Amino acid sequence: MPSHEQMIAAVHAYVDAFAKEDSDAIARLYAGDATVEDPIGAPVHRGIDAIRKFYAMAIATRAKLTLNGPVRTAGDIAAFAFSVHLTMAGSPYRIDVIDTFQFDANGKIAEMRAFWGPLNVHQLEVTGDS
Amino acid sequence: MPSHEQMIAAVHAYVDAFAKEDSDAIARLYAGDATVEDPIGAPVHRGIDAIRKFYAMAIATRAKLTLNGPVRTAGDIAAFAFSVHLTMAGSPYRIDVIDTFQFDANGKIAEMRAFWGPLNVHQLEVTGDS
Repeated sequence: MPSHEQMIAAVHAYVDAFAKEDSDAIARLYAGDATVEDPIGAPVHRGIDAIRKFYAMAIATRAKLTLNGPVRTAGDIAAFAFSVHLTMAGSPYRIDVIDTFQFDANGKIAEMRAFWGPLNVHQLEVTGDS
Repeated sequence: MPSHEQMIAAVHAYVDAFAKEDSDAIARLYAGDATVEDPIGAPVHRGIDAIRKFYAMAIATRAKLTLNGPVRTAGDIAAFAFSVHLTMAGSPYRIDVIDTFQFDANGKIAEMRAFWGPLNVHQLEVTGDS
């Protein structure tokens, strides 16, 4: 089981990879047979190929993540609150999200779940409001 | 399934009940056969009697909750980041936590899971640091 410090480092690597628009770096954080459910209730992406495609699409929105407060860790799970700024159909949005990463024995993400819904999606003014 | 608004209202009722030190008000938010895992990995409290006892102990620490950012809702789950201020063995602490509430069809909490670990526990100066 990864240490609390290792799980926190993985979350920061995830945020950094979005900043660098590097979907391969994100995929490397995942186990080969991992699952991604984003948001909860949406079809689950299974396996590293599907996950890499999912993140390539996310990167294409120029999504940038900003952590809201410290990463919480419990057992083999990290939970973290963040805001995503991204562009959809030419308009800027902020989405407030909480993700959980469950890690395997090798410290790779085995299961990602994203908690956000329609009330967490905010269209922003183009003038630079955030 | 409860609406997003109902789930958010339940989270605010939960925070308010801590402010009022009202463990019965907390218990009323739960389904009769609910489970509470706080933190993840600890023994699970099963059923409303066990849950009421758990919260009576939490209230005895004078735990007060402060939400960190908006409640996230997805499907039948609310996720929210918060800080708990409480007193243990005469010393003040802040614990940074993310909880998830999964709701049943009646809008009662069926499953609560709390994500926090040793790196999220901060002993505070008695001078009023927070």
